[in-house]
Amino acid sequence: MTRWFEDVVIDEVHELGHHRFTQAEIIRFAQAYDPQYYQVDPGQAAYSHFGGIVASGWHTAAVGHRLMVDALFAQEERLRRLGQEPGVSGPSPGGSQIAFSAPVRPGDTISYRLSVYSKRRSNSIAGWGLLFNRMVATNQRGEEVYLSEFVGFSKLRDYRMPWRRKLLHALTQAPLIGTWLKGRT
Amino acid sequence: MTRWFEDVVIDEVHELGHHRFTQAEIIRFAQAYDPQYYQVDPGQAAYSHFGGIVASGWHTAAVGHRLMVDALFAQEERLRRLGQEPGVSGPSPGGSQIAFSAPVRPGDTISYRLSVYSKRRSNSIAGWGLLFNRMVATNQRGEEVYLSEFVGFSKLRDYRMPWRRKLLHALTQAPLIGTWLKGRT
Repeated sequence: MTRWFEDVVIDEVHELGHHRFTQAEIIRFAQAYDPQYYQVDPGQAAYSHFGGIVASGWHTAAVGHRLMVDALFAQEERLRRLGQEPGVSGPSPGGSQIAFSAPVRPGDTISYRLSVYSKRRSNSIAGWGLLFNRMVATNQRGEEVYLSEFVGFSKLRDYRMPWRRKLLHALTQAPLIGTWLKGRT
Repeated sequence: MTRWFEDVVIDEVHELGHHRFTQAEIIRFAQAYDPQYYQVDPGQAAYSHFGGIVASGWHTAAVGHRLMVDALFAQEERLRRLGQEPGVSGPSPGGSQIAFSAPVRPGDTISYRLSVYSKRRSNSIAGWGLLFNRMVATNQRGEEVYLSEFVGFSKLRDYRMPWRRKLLHALTQAPLIGTWLKGRT
């Protein structure tokens, strides 16, 4: 999120845009990362329980991630143009759910949505919070094809370093004490 | 798994092989699906909290999936050469955990391992079981960089269709009764 942790609104829905999956692209991704016959061979795929070629679940996930990153960049630029300082997002330690709810087929247009269903301050990293994100993707008929729940770090805008930590931080800058302290914290 | 559901041994570890992540490959994947500066720009990445370029978590996941598919194909071929009929695996409805435990950096060699930590017969699809797979990846120093828990369908070898279902199946083959029954099952 390009909002500061404090400003993130729970359950607000962010449209991330859509992507049309072509057969060529589905096959290209699958040949690299998931070459199962119902994802790379249209002839054989016709005899699978899918009845035709489908996208690898990892492909559906990766495309959604790309749309999210693009949306964050665009929002960041928009805020800067308005003279505002955008929030800072960090990397993701992982996720708690991922569902390939229905097949994605060549020609399908998949729309992705993001919302934050929960947030809290990080226990391990001072000055940062955790956002619990939910991404949902639907096809052109409104059927859910993908859902994931992922954690992401987000910087606190209003964070003030406590004086104990400030002191510790200042001490770590001193060469000898710093080396000794870093071994202990 | 290319073993039949009944033959899958809980917690048996399957080595899936390893992959060396080059900087060019890391940047190529990230440019397509996850173009954040610490994954595409070595110069800027030096100033990130990673201190250098790292692989997208989706890249680490996709490479592990590819190694798994390759290992399954190889095992299948080996069984056929031995005159045995390999088991049949189906697609994955999703996962319950995914952790990007530590960064993957250019030059890292990542080893992937798969085990099945639980299994049960499917409640919704007759003749199939569910395997609860855990994939763990470690770098050349033995540090865990990735862990995922994913469900996969696996065919039952010893499945006999119950007579009620056989009768229903036979009836669905008759044109008019079939249409009527399919609306109800």
